[in-house]
Amino acid sequence: MNLEIVSSEMLEQGVRKLDWIFPRLRVLNMLCEEFEREKPLKGLTIGMCLHVEPKTAGLLRVLQAGGAKVAVTGSPGTTQDDVAIALANTGISVYGCSRDKRTEHLENIRDVLRHQPQLLMDNGADLTATLIEEFSANGVIGGTEETTSGAHRLRSELRGRVSFPVIVINDSPLKRIVENEHGVGQTTVEGFLRVTNLMVPGKRFVVVGYGHCGRGIAKSLKHFGGRVTVVEIDPVRALEAGMLGIEVKDLEDTLTWGEAFITATGQSGVLTAKHMMKMSNGAVLANAGHFSTEFDLSGLKNIAKAEERLVDGIDKFVLPNGNEIFLLAEGEMINLAGGKGNPAENMDMGLALQALAIKRIAQDHVELGKGAQPVPHEINQRVATLMLNSIFDY
Amino acid sequence: MNLEIVSSEMLEQGVRKLDWIFPRLRVLNMLCEEFEREKPLKGLTIGMCLHVEPKTAGLLRVLQAGGAKVAVTGSPGTTQDDVAIALANTGISVYGCSRDKRTEHLENIRDVLRHQPQLLMDNGADLTATLIEEFSANGVIGGTEETTSGAHRLRSELRGRVSFPVIVINDSPLKRIVENEHGVGQTTVEGFLRVTNLMVPGKRFVVVGYGHCGRGIAKSLKHFGGRVTVVEIDPVRALEAGMLGIEVKDLEDTLTWGEAFITATGQSGVLTAKHMMKMSNGAVLANAGHFSTEFDLSGLKNIAKAEERLVDGIDKFVLPNGNEIFLLAEGEMINLAGGKGNPAENMDMGLALQALAIKRIAQDHVELGKGAQPVPHEINQRVATLMLNSIFDY
Amino acid sequence: MNLEIVSSEMLEQGVRKLDWIFPRLRVLNMLCEEFEREKPLKGLTIGMCLHVEPKTAGLLRVLQAGGAKVAVTGSPGTTQDDVAIALANTGISVYGCSRDKRTEHLENIRDVLRHQPQLLMDNGADLTATLIEEFSANGVIGGTEETTSGAHRLRSELRGRVSFPVIVINDSPLKRIVENEHGVGQTTVEGFLRVTNLMVPGKRFVVVGYGHCGRGIAKSLKHFGGRVTVVEIDPVRALEAGMLGIEVKDLEDTLTWGEAFITATGQSGVLTAKHMMKMSNGAVLANAGHFSTEFDLSGLKNIAKAEERLVDGIDKFVLPNGNEIFLLAEGEMINLAGGKGNPAENMDMGLALQALAIKRIAQDHVELGKGAQPVPHEINQRVATLMLNSIFDY
Amino acid sequence: MNLEIVSSEMLEQGVRKLDWIFPRLRVLNMLCEEFEREKPLKGLTIGMCLHVEPKTAGLLRVLQAGGAKVAVTGSPGTTQDDVAIALANTGISVYGCSRDKRTEHLENIRDVLRHQPQLLMDNGADLTATLIEEFSANGVIGGTEETTSGAHRLRSELRGRVSFPVIVINDSPLKRIVENEHGVGQTTVEGFLRVTNLMVPGKRFVVVGYGHCGRGIAKSLKHFGGRVTVVEIDPVRALEAGMLGIEVKDLEDTLTWGEAFITATGQSGVLTAKHMMKMSNGAVLANAGHFSTEFDLSGLKNIAKAEERLVDGIDKFVLPNGNEIFLLAEGEMINLAGGKGNPAENMDMGLALQALAIKRIAQDHVELGKGAQPVPHEINQRVATLMLNSIFDY
Repeated sequence: MNLEIVSSEMLEQGVRKLDWIFPRLRVLNMLCEEFEREKPLKGLTIGMCLHVEPKTAGLLRVLQAGGAKVAVTGSPGTTQDDVAIALANTGISVYGCSRDKRTEHLENIRDVLRHQPQLLMDNGADLTATLIEEFSANGVIGGTEETTSGAHRLRSELRGRVSFPVIVINDSPLKRIVENEHGVGQTTVEGFLRVTNLMVPGKRFVVVGYGHCGRGIAKSLKHFGGRVTVVEIDPVRALEAGMLGIEVKDLEDTLTWGEAFITATGQSGVLTAKHMMKMSNGAVLANAGHFSTEFDLSGLKNIAKAEERLVDGIDKFVLPNGNEIFLLAEGEMINLAGGKGNPAENMDMGLALQALAIKRIAQDHVELGKGAQPVPHEINQRVATLMLNSIFDY
Repeated sequence: MNLEIVSSEMLEQGVRKLDWIFPRLRVLNMLCEEFEREKPLKGLTIGMCLHVEPKTAGLLRVLQAGGAKVAVTGSPGTTQDDVAIALANTGISVYGCSRDKRTEHLENIRDVLRHQPQLLMDNGADLTATLIEEFSANGVIGGTEETTSGAHRLRSELRGRVSFPVIVINDSPLKRIVENEHGVGQTTVEGFLRVTNLMVPGKRFVVVGYGHCGRGIAKSLKHFGGRVTVVEIDPVRALEAGMLGIEVKDLEDTLTWGEAFITATGQSGVLTAKHMMKMSNGAVLANAGHFSTEFDLSGLKNIAKAEERLVDGIDKFVLPNGNEIFLLAEGEMINLAGGKGNPAENMDMGLALQALAIKRIAQDHVELGKGAQPVPHEINQRVATLMLNSIFDY
Repeated sequence: MNLEIVSSEMLEQGVRKLDWIFPRLRVLNMLCEEFEREKPLKGLTIGMCLHVEPKTAGLLRVLQAGGAKVAVTGSPGTTQDDVAIALANTGISVYGCSRDKRTEHLENIRDVLRHQPQLLMDNGADLTATLIEEFSANGVIGGTEETTSGAHRLRSELRGRVSFPVIVINDSPLKRIVENEHGVGQTTVEGFLRVTNLMVPGKRFVVVGYGHCGRGIAKSLKHFGGRVTVVEIDPVRALEAGMLGIEVKDLEDTLTWGEAFITATGQSGVLTAKHMMKMSNGAVLANAGHFSTEFDLSGLKNIAKAEERLVDGIDKFVLPNGNEIFLLAEGEMINLAGGKGNPAENMDMGLALQALAIKRIAQDHVELGKGAQPVPHEINQRVATLMLNSIFDY
Repeated sequence: MNLEIVSSEMLEQGVRKLDWIFPRLRVLNMLCEEFEREKPLKGLTIGMCLHVEPKTAGLLRVLQAGGAKVAVTGSPGTTQDDVAIALANTGISVYGCSRDKRTEHLENIRDVLRHQPQLLMDNGADLTATLIEEFSANGVIGGTEETTSGAHRLRSELRGRVSFPVIVINDSPLKRIVENEHGVGQTTVEGFLRVTNLMVPGKRFVVVGYGHCGRGIAKSLKHFGGRVTVVEIDPVRALEAGMLGIEVKDLEDTLTWGEAFITATGQSGVLTAKHMMKMSNGAVLANAGHFSTEFDLSGLKNIAKAEERLVDGIDKFVLPNGNEIFLLAEGEMINLAGGKGNPAENMDMGLALQALAIKRIAQDHVELGKGAQPVPHEINQRVATLMLNSIFDY
């Protein structure tokens, strides 16, 4: 289903959103000049499935500058209609709108593939899977995949059936440094403040998981005066926390102590209903991991005597022992809840990796192996260099 | 004009807001028990003018527990109607609603004073001034004043006419420590992230003013990886910044360097249109001081060739030299813009000072001098102790 | 007793010490030019009692540049003979040497006063007291006093007998910012590492006293990954620590927890033998306050079953309960123990206050009141400005 | 040459040094109990070449507790004679003393090998090389190697000739976390303060190299208020610094800015005489990398017009352009200069890896491959766990 109704008001609103964010995507702006000059994508069509929001629009400009035609659809629920309209207005073929569900999403995917793209830029391997199952991969020379879970699909259910190289963006060390440690670390604190109207100083936080996200969260809370205990099963990582003076404990030993629990483990069911029964009255739960399943929410709903939404983003559950616990953002990523998505600079970095990866595919697809593969070292170095330039050359 | 329409839905919404915030006002909760037990306000009527929002409601519970009758009105534009209704439902006399302008506000003030209060809890000296000019101060034994500007009115235009003691809350050292340095410092960063969707790391911030607010802002930005330059005219304060490794410069020398300018001086016209003309293209302006006049906005509007609201909270101005600069939150306090007001713990502290100050007035008004006076030392000590208890006794 | 033996080797050694440190005393260097130009001390003789060490020598150069004749003696035990010889070689009258005891010190004081100085620069009020009791104050137009304890003498035992203005250096806010919070804070951690060969990360420190020194120590330890608990009786100060996420406890509740205790209260007998009996085996005690009496050392020696010096700066005491506790630097300031004294930049700031204060006395002694008085505001501002220049103008 | 004698005074002094440090080696203490119980080294002789200083003595106790006989020699110049005597007194065969040069060192190595050890604990591969060239490897079942440079010898000149497994300690991730980032980071600042008597706040530091050591140094300096610029050729690492708000520049662009330069690159000739000629007058040079060749000292000596030792650890060089630059600790590691060696907790961690590695060799040498190999994952995990216990279980 192609995008239809265009009020001029929505178009203008979309354009204004881009006006704010586009100049802030500095690495993409630098690449825009390069792509304009070199035209590495000349004559190629790109099929894309990425969130249709202002920052992604920056990538589209780079690709267009590079000579590509682009057909794009978003993910269900994340499309910003005004941005979609603004993009359509610049000659991009845009499919889908904010109210699409899974069925419409698959139809949008097919609409994109009907453009017979040579290059795919995918998010969760939806494009690739549909291509292989319903279309022909002939003529596709390669692509990129944004997510780790998409890469997992390529390596499991689609194993052996992907006849072209796919560069997986999310494995880049730059994502861990820029996005996980700093981006998630800081915006998780921002989201907590925004949703709860509480302060950090003196408050007792339990951060469950000390990977790059957990480390960023723990450090940000500590800098703001929070008292932080970390729960981490890998002793080497746990020791890293300990060397910073952060308390390291078993989860069981933090339950009555903690006032707020923030999960960032990447695992499911880390905090169970049993754990919640041992927490102190008034405990606050937030998740910063990718999936909302880090808390056992169904277990919580099963035991809860009552459940009530107090204000936006805060649900109160009354436990059998009479204690109240408060769930933020329904367990979805607290740093994104009610906000504007990942910060511009995070996206700038990730989308620049996308742009240079697809350029590499366009130029070297014959030399590259088939299937999922990491971002080439020199692309990581290149984007790091551009980002340093964007910060320090003024 | 008394509060009228009550939908049960709005009442419930107000009650739910209090359900979230009231247990988090720990110092007020401790005082509630004490006031319940001692009834220090028995038989007294309090006339109050304070923001009618969830946290203020906590103070009202304490006063009611202490035996007082309370008539309250908010400030123009800050009343939350659902909270007002929830309060009215508990026996408080509440005047005013969210859509009131200055005229209605003054009528609300008069409505409050018609209750013939013995005690006043004031915000900007509106109650006191109206009392003196239109009513009789006979029977009034004293009061509190929240703001520094209210205290200024008491000491200038009302000088010699205030026949009762008024304890000024905002001068307490606790406000500077808890609210200015930590509260404003952290929520300013939160507000900046929220409104702009940008990140702090590597970004060049100029913090203008290094009082308690400026210090908190500069430290928070530095902790989040911002590159910070401070502008401060008092060399002793400036040296404090320098000892932290923060660059200290004259304002003129920061103009092309800065990507974002945050003012917290308490002065007007600190950043003029002339300054803005020297800033780099894309500069972002935010204010964290009490008044929106720290930037010369009318000067800016005068020279601007074009002005456009891009997204909520971000206005673009095109300067005669072709540069664009971006104003956040129309120059109002960026930490409060679009958020939920001061954090609960800040308010808890300030309102606890209010509660104990009014108790002191009720008990010792004869001994206390007339007119504006600081919070007694032992009340500061008491609230600090209670706050420490609320953090460390668990 | 004037300085006698001069080996050329010692002279050269003294000169080399000055060669290292003098260019680092940047504020004094700036003042040196000013004094050279203005000659504000022309024709005046200064009697001085200050530590004769390389940094003090910087002050002497300024005074000589300003036209003064100077006669100086040190404090018992702190004179560096090589520096003394180097000074004598530049025309300063230097009295005393490193092996002097109290008797010789008093004779040195008399020797200085026999020069009939118009200006006194004193340390502990020894010069002033001897002047008043044994000499005549006629001809003395004023002076400075470095220490708070000297100021105390002027205001108590010498009260009413000081016929000239004495500016007290140690009360300057610059001392608190530069010297106490940063200087003592950082060098205490340095001293702890140096003496013990231990690390900070993960270690449990109890910092007793949260004034400017204690705050600097607690923050430095926290930055280095130490786990810090603060003991502070003033709740407002304690709350400042709590807002940084530092645990605040009663001393009694820290005794078994702490691995190392650092005192910075300015009080005597803060940690008693009774407290030590409750500490865990292996506890380490260090003092960062001015006097070694913050621990009750005689109480400790009384109860100890055994006492042994293990290595330089570490004494082991075996308690009646079998526990061992370890005292660093005999309870003297751990930041100075075995080191080179206060850092150059701290001294530079303090000595610059001295230089400008004595210049002010020379120029305005008639206008200034008699007796001990604070550093004039504009001198604090001036030295802060010069220090900022020394940091940021390059 | 065996250790001779032996004043009872030196013996006591050595014993006292161990009395201080041994209880602080907590992980080794835990292992001591385990080795005592399990006797994993029963009947085995260990030939060891490690620094003979108090902390190494802790390892020897563990090995003895495990049932081993040990013959040990130190490295030239690092043996502490009093400690050697104290060890000899406990039944260890100790060879060498503090005044040994290379010739005596090789003879000591031979003396150790004459004990016909089954296990080697080596430092720089001296034992292994001499064994292979002069003795027979029959009967040797494996060993450990402390250093990366020793591992390099095993993999190059001794390649194919090492018939037994050798576990290389220095590659463990624990070394990078505990020793490089925290240990070197903090003790470098300590060493700088100790040697120079200067302060960090406001000072301009250039940290050359942003590996784990450089990162630790830059962060420590920043925490203490230093203004830090990092030079790093790998853009990904450089971006990590940039995300912390640390300036990243090319070396050339820092030369006039820097007041102090600290190298930690692991490379030679990083700072050349040409660079030094561009530095500002008064620049201070310090090295925190393993080798003193990070500065081109011979180049410096060649161009210098004059050279003078001012105080211990500070040499002044006068350059042809008249500028003076100051070299700390002759370019040797500033964190160890004049101090007591690596902190106890760093050594505790490294020596625990040694103890568990040699236990593994004793038990599993048949299964392990030949030649240099990394510390097994489970040993890293085990030592991390023990270290966490030593910090958090109290």
